[in-house]
Amino acid sequence: MTADYFDRHRDLLDRAVRAIATREFWSAYPESPSPRNYGETAGEAGRQAFEALRGGTFPLQVDGAEPLAGGERSPFGFDLHISYPRLSPQDSVAASTRALARWRRAGPRAWVGVSLEILQRLNRASFEIAHAVQHTTGQGFLMAFQAGGPHAQDRGLEAVAYAWQELSRIPEKVLWEKPQGKQDPVRMEKHYTVVPRGVALVIGCSTFPTWNGYPGLFASLATGNTVIVKPHPTAILPLAITVRIAREVLAEAGHDPDVVLLAPHAAGDDTAQVLATHPGVAIVDFTGSKANGEWLEQHARQAQVYTEKSGINTVILDSVDDLQAAARNVAFSLTLYSGQMCTAPQNILVPRDGVRTAQGRAGFDEVAGAIASALQALTADEAKAGDLLGGIQADATLARLDEARDLGLPVLAQSRAIAHPQFQGARIRTPLLLRADARHPAIRREWFGPIAFVVETADTAQAIALARDSARDHGALTMSAYTTDPEIAHALRDAAEEGGVALSLNLTGGVFVNQSAAFSDFHGTGANPAANASLCDSAYVANRFRVVQARWHV
Amino acid sequence: MTADYFDRHRDLLDRAVRAIATREFWSAYPESPSPRNYGETAGEAGRQAFEALRGGTFPLQVDGAEPLAGGERSPFGFDLHISYPRLSPQDSVAASTRALARWRRAGPRAWVGVSLEILQRLNRASFEIAHAVQHTTGQGFLMAFQAGGPHAQDRGLEAVAYAWQELSRIPEKVLWEKPQGKQDPVRMEKHYTVVPRGVALVIGCSTFPTWNGYPGLFASLATGNTVIVKPHPTAILPLAITVRIAREVLAEAGHDPDVVLLAPHAAGDDTAQVLATHPGVAIVDFTGSKANGEWLEQHARQAQVYTEKSGINTVILDSVDDLQAAARNVAFSLTLYSGQMCTAPQNILVPRDGVRTAQGRAGFDEVAGAIASALQALTADEAKAGDLLGGIQADATLARLDEARDLGLPVLAQSRAIAHPQFQGARIRTPLLLRADARHPAIRREWFGPIAFVVETADTAQAIALARDSARDHGALTMSAYTTDPEIAHALRDAAEEGGVALSLNLTGGVFVNQSAAFSDFHGTGANPAANASLCDSAYVANRFRVVQARWHV
Repeated sequence: MTADYFDRHRDLLDRAVRAIATREFWSAYPESPSPRNYGETAGEAGRQAFEALRGGTFPLQVDGAEPLAGGERSPFGFDLHISYPRLSPQDSVAASTRALARWRRAGPRAWVGVSLEILQRLNRASFEIAHAVQHTTGQGFLMAFQAGGPHAQDRGLEAVAYAWQELSRIPEKVLWEKPQGKQDPVRMEKHYTVVPRGVALVIGCSTFPTWNGYPGLFASLATGNTVIVKPHPTAILPLAITVRIAREVLAEAGHDPDVVLLAPHAAGDDTAQVLATHPGVAIVDFTGSKANGEWLEQHARQAQVYTEKSGINTVILDSVDDLQAAARNVAFSLTLYSGQMCTAPQNILVPRDGVRTAQGRAGFDEVAGAIASALQALTADEAKAGDLLGGIQADATLARLDEARDLGLPVLAQSRAIAHPQFQGARIRTPLLLRADARHPAIRREWFGPIAFVVETADTAQAIALARDSARDHGALTMSAYTTDPEIAHALRDAAEEGGVALSLNLTGGVFVNQSAAFSDFHGTGANPAANASLCDSAYVANRFRVVQARWHV
Repeated sequence: MTADYFDRHRDLLDRAVRAIATREFWSAYPESPSPRNYGETAGEAGRQAFEALRGGTFPLQVDGAEPLAGGERSPFGFDLHISYPRLSPQDSVAASTRALARWRRAGPRAWVGVSLEILQRLNRASFEIAHAVQHTTGQGFLMAFQAGGPHAQDRGLEAVAYAWQELSRIPEKVLWEKPQGKQDPVRMEKHYTVVPRGVALVIGCSTFPTWNGYPGLFASLATGNTVIVKPHPTAILPLAITVRIAREVLAEAGHDPDVVLLAPHAAGDDTAQVLATHPGVAIVDFTGSKANGEWLEQHARQAQVYTEKSGINTVILDSVDDLQAAARNVAFSLTLYSGQMCTAPQNILVPRDGVRTAQGRAGFDEVAGAIASALQALTADEAKAGDLLGGIQADATLARLDEARDLGLPVLAQSRAIAHPQFQGARIRTPLLLRADARHPAIRREWFGPIAFVVETADTAQAIALARDSARDHGALTMSAYTTDPEIAHALRDAAEEGGVALSLNLTGGVFVNQSAAFSDFHGTGANPAANASLCDSAYVANRFRVVQARWHV
């Protein structure tokens, strides 16, 4: 190896391992794109790097690859026209398997050291990645920078920290001495070798390709597996840049760059299915739809499968000090990236006779109206609203908006198209807010995107039971609730535990239920159908490697 | 809770956690049945306790249970005539689910404390359990005591130590303070609650019901799950005693005894399948046949499934200092409990042109003859051989012996019936040793029981490749090899790592490849088809619980 990246990043690694233990606030990579953090020229250099990629062949040298026209289109209104080098699924697995033999022998310090160096270089490329994320996912620039750059890198580092924590507790060897009464003890030397599972597949999603892709990528890589990264056909570029940087680091360190491969493919083909069920693939990490995630769980039986699918997130309103502050917070959660977040709320449960406030009881209509008004206020200034809402990533989300309108439910806030001052063709929509009864079937399915329901419940008890059962039966990544009553707070925590869903209580300030902080918040619990794993915990990394021992007498 | 078992056993727990980190020799429960360890009266009291159970109703108070005639028969030649209280699978899951609600809330210290107290009381009952193990599995008394008692308890404690290690790293709460430049930081309190998966099922095996059953039982119990123990119909008693003791501890501590339930059933019914695929069952631990293990992996899709199935274990002879010592060690491994151990060797690979020794080259026939002679010597004294060989547990194993004889392969050592001085009707058999070519299909399947093959290979390189591929394709729990050549030792370690199988090198003394020591040896790797998990590691426990967080501003 040409460089010992492990020693270079050892302090950072130790700090990250402390952070996952205490779960205090900590971040390795600055979330502000300020020049103070990234230098005066980084912003412009990143923009130019992105522009240089448009209309060309993505610079990735892969033996035997054929060009694939990417077909990516920015939700802000233009085509990227980038072509990517593509191997067939069979050739991808073959190349990854060839790279595995030597990568396996490199051992834990090399796996972790290379992972940490890749993360550092990804951080330096945060602006380039931000533009790539913005113009594939439709996120506004600041969100694309933060969630696609430093926050994603933090999640990757978190996975490396968990991996190292598990790897470092396997001793390399031990002298085993078993007493034999008056005779000499039996003495054996035992050696423990960490062996990776094999070839890992990371299936990227269309909305958060790096944030949701890095945990699996780095959890597998840091435990000695080789990784094939298969991006969503509409969001290839952010992961292509990631793979390019990973391969640069691998090559510089004297490893086979094919330890990390990109598997771009055209929409609608069977690349994902062929790769995921290939007998040579041992691990699959997936973020995406419920249907695709369940297909993988059913069919990729030869592999360890980690899925984050979808869910129905609920807000419960019982009692508040300040209704306007609560309504603003909820409205912001619906507006941010047009609800195209797996953590965004969908069903807002309000008791039939309203909500207690410091100013007395607010009726159901008043509560629903406060949320609708807050939505209106957040999106009134179109010049600003465009960056907050971002673009609609998928045609299916636009179609879902139409479908929701056709439900015939009373409209509390209409979804409006908004123009972006910078991007003419951007497709931007404000959230549609509908009123529904607790028995309406619409609230029992996911409406991914800017669609939410204010749901009338008999009382708070029914709301809590509904939220719990919905999480347990349909999955949920978040639950948010407002109450000033300690007994109800206790019942809410119990319901969250039974539903296996993270609870946020009384968010009225600058923290939103959508947000999940690396090193502190577990993203997903693995305890309801929304995800079979959590980002990130021991369970997420411990089964990506195995230990083979050898023993002999000394 | 009436007693804080956690504090009482805290030192033991800390010691066990240290042991799994260093993997030095350590044992919590003395393996010698000496009165110095267990007291002067323990042996006789245990025998009487066992005798008192024969011909009666097993003392277990379970609401709504119906008696089930057990049908257990000692391989030493008598029926046990014990009946057990039985609930239907549906009622078992319902009772376990009822017990779960309160057990979940008891929290990690209660789960771990109760588990440790159960283990201590199991240790006190080691003699009673030893007789129960002997007269269901056919193990000789000393093995039944050690493997069924203290060694099994050590494996249970090991699982509790891994569980506690994972549980204890989840902080109960943290104050999360995120800096906001010149403004006040965002301050949140975050609480992390460990929640169990739910109802766990332990499917016991017929040969090592406690040793193979305790890891799953205690891994699940110590992480807050309730446990249904389903013994093999021919080896109910050891697990019935275990469940009786667990329920006593639970009741004394003020918990619902139904946290641990026994699910005895008649041979050939569908209790295992119904329980394992019940939507209310979240975890399945299984030890048994390849066919049943694979059925569970395919069908118990709603659960986390941990299996130890079967494999083909290989010995490779390349070069030795002392051929007789090597042959004795191999022969002992074949003889111990008549090869009815998942770790016992089956295929003994010897190069066509023999083995280098300190006295020059020993030809193939000489090597095969040395092993056959060692088998003969070990079993010549029938009075002693009966306890070493033990009884044949299953009719299927006797039938398999006949089938092996009918292969028509050259016989190196014939299987003989042996009388036991104490038990008239015991069915005891010495190992059958056959000679086979490396291409013979017989060596590519498992022959569980006293059946082994000396296999002629072209050379050592072919032997190593065969052992590696056999482990990878058919599974293996152990690999044993003899070589004096460091380069071949290196190649063997590499092959073991690729085959995902634990390697023992040059065992010639009092350690045998069959043996696996808790806290030091990983039993199974989870890296080949013999087992999808290892006893015991972080991966074995970390996914038996999940974490649900709640956060709010302070």
